[in-house]
Amino acid sequence: MGIDPGVASTGFGVVRFDGGRMSALDGGVIETPAALDPGRRLARIHGAVSDLLDRHEPDSVALEDIYFGRNVRSAVAVGQARGVVMLAAAQAGLECFDYTPQAVKMAVCGTGGASKAQVQRMVGALLGLEGPPSSDHAADALAVAICHGNRAAFELAAGASQQASQAQAAGVAP
Amino acid sequence: MGIDPGVASTGFGVVRFDGGRMSALDGGVIETPAALDPGRRLARIHGAVSDLLDRHEPDSVALEDIYFGRNVRSAVAVGQARGVVMLAAAQAGLECFDYTPQAVKMAVCGTGGASKAQVQRMVGALLGLEGPPSSDHAADALAVAICHGNRAAFELAAGASQQASQAQAAGVAP
Repeated sequence: MGIDPGVASTGFGVVRFDGGRMSALDGGVIETPAALDPGRRLARIHGAVSDLLDRHEPDSVALEDIYFGRNVRSAVAVGQARGVVMLAAAQAGLECFDYTPQAVKMAVCGTGGASKAQVQRMVGALLGLEGPPSSDHAADALAVAICHGNRAAFELAAGASQQASQAQAAGVAP
Repeated sequence: MGIDPGVASTGFGVVRFDGGRMSALDGGVIETPAALDPGRRLARIHGAVSDLLDRHEPDSVALEDIYFGRNVRSAVAVGQARGVVMLAAAQAGLECFDYTPQAVKMAVCGTGGASKAQVQRMVGALLGLEGPPSSDHAADALAVAICHGNRAAFELAAGASQQASQAQAAGVAP
């Protein structure tokens, strides 16, 4: 499950990796009204993410890291939303993985400088959706899930080939 | 209850305001080991703060606002710790109040430019402790509780005198 945390809008996306194929199981945005007390907004995000983790039982959670160019005030606010998302993951026994916005764009678009619209288009294409996700928060969350899934699949493959070559060296493999 | 949130060390302090007198009911530091997964560190902070809120049933929670001079990386980390503290407060039905470091220092030392050592000494003196709190995180948490309690006491007094003068104007008061 990928998450793009934010106080007003937290994007989420659940991507299934099955061999070389990936597909979107869920995706959307958790929105909290500005009129609500800040603590209650965080409680909504925490509750909604906990529900999604319960429903989908993902293997892990991937978060988009904060963009360094932000100012300190907005970094704290995003940090607060990140904190309750990371807490929900820890409470579900899951590890969180962070990816920089550049790494995410590179994973889905092949370039770290891709625009939001390019990310939305490529996410739609990679997941075989009818069109690009309408929300850029949901698209970012699906993109970070794709980025993590690709890395995990790559490491699994690398680990498997390493095991195979070790087994060959030990003379126990075909 | 005052809280000075941080990933490694979260200070807490519980101050009772009884008429014009204040006293410390509790104070200390929640520490999390750096070796722990970041999500688990946040879960420890959330659990410990929730326990303290259960035990002391404070009227409200006051947090020290982040220092603007911080860099974005550390602002995000403190924001994550703040997020789980604010969540614990919201889950206990309590509102969080933010005070800038300057406002807190002004409230306990009479100057916004006081040093950490001055804050520790004044917190010890104001609360009638045997000495200054040994941890500056606990001292900061007690200081923000004092700052909030003073403001709340002032607003209560101002509200009472406003009511009295309104009653006088309406000819219903002595």
